[in-house]
Amino acid sequence: MAVEAASGAHRPAGRPTQKVLSKERITAAALKLIEAGGYERLTMSALAKSLQVAPSALYNHVASKQDVLVLVQDDIITSIDVSAFGTEPWAAAIRRWAWSYRDVFTRHTPLIPVIAVLPVTGAGQTLRMYETLTAAFLDDGWPEPLVVPAIVALESFIFGSAFDVTAPADIFESGELAEANPKFTSAVRSQGLGAGGSAADAAFRLGLEGLIVGLQAQRDAWAAG
Amino acid sequence: MAVEAASGAHRPAGRPTQKVLSKERITAAALKLIEAGGYERLTMSALAKSLQVAPSALYNHVASKQDVLVLVQDDIITSIDVSAFGTEPWAAAIRRWAWSYRDVFTRHTPLIPVIAVLPVTGAGQTLRMYETLTAAFLDDGWPEPLVVPAIVALESFIFGSAFDVTAPADIFESGELAEANPKFTSAVRSQGLGAGGSAADAAFRLGLEGLIVGLQAQRDAWAAG
Repeated sequence: MAVEAASGAHRPAGRPTQKVLSKERITAAALKLIEAGGYERLTMSALAKSLQVAPSALYNHVASKQDVLVLVQDDIITSIDVSAFGTEPWAAAIRRWAWSYRDVFTRHTPLIPVIAVLPVTGAGQTLRMYETLTAAFLDDGWPEPLVVPAIVALESFIFGSAFDVTAPADIFESGELAEANPKFTSAVRSQGLGAGGSAADAAFRLGLEGLIVGLQAQRDAWAAG
Repeated sequence: MAVEAASGAHRPAGRPTQKVLSKERITAAALKLIEAGGYERLTMSALAKSLQVAPSALYNHVASKQDVLVLVQDDIITSIDVSAFGTEPWAAAIRRWAWSYRDVFTRHTPLIPVIAVLPVTGAGQTLRMYETLTAAFLDDGWPEPLVVPAIVALESFIFGSAFDVTAPADIFESGELAEANPKFTSAVRSQGLGAGGSAADAAFRLGLEGLIVGLQAQRDAWAAG
């Protein structure tokens, strides 16, 4: 305490307290920019400004915006629940992972167009998740050539479903075109909302359970030759 | 011919030929803006500028940017192949529609975050597509409450898959982290690419065939009780 007070007393007036720049702080600042204004908002100069550092200081830690996106993706991935892999059967583990994955990306939909096409090279946490998934598929007897296509198919469904969660409740209201489209209008009104009462959850549950059963059928067909 | 030439001759020098503003021209200009710079690029003033009209002229045709997006969505939807509905069995018709839908949105990925959450109210072509789909589901014996959730699940998979088509071929290259993630690295190298040799097509085929089989299983389970 005494040392800090003495140090503070000697600091020239007007010089702000400077937090040390780190990959963690850069990641947090980047996430904030993207969530506020989308991918377009994230530039190296905007990032430096939000961190109150010179761009040159930023470039000491990340070589490019691509580097920043890898940090962001890798941070978000750690929020996904992979705890059921290795402890529960394949279908139950996929189910828990997929619901968690969708919920995480529902809070980060502006990142989906970026992350869906971002190479995983250098993204340690992301690769760790894929390693965990691959092990679970192989332990369940999946043929190796089907593992990556199955993961990609599940992720595509999850990314699309994350958007759907953020859709307005009246997205399928046909309005004055209801009479011209009677079957669809009636189907929208009769749709099952499930226990939670959410149309997005009902569609995700139906699709996910369908994918789980259907991918297993594809696996068995492959094994049968 | 003679009239046109005479008319041209009488036009005051320097006055440009003005094409009549229409919803079709507004739609085409909006599509161009979005594809060039994403959703953020599409503003009413940018649209007016690209059409070389005053914003007030634009507002005579569309009340808001939301109106413009409905026009854009509705235009793109007409490119999707729905010709198999009503002529082929449910699974075959879904298959043709889904591949076509994915291919159309692969060319329009910047629109996915917009369209996935855009109400269909007033979008006549979009509603017509949903009406056609609903009729095909009902004709195939689907219980009405499952129709909309099944369509939403398929669309979510299609939207996510459209992003995946635009991903770089090396998206799963683990680079120097390969040794730390041996199972995934091996699975990426062994993945089946299918006849066309495209990883995205292989994943889409596996997921779509899985969804078709799995959704039918969900339908039968519902019918059974």
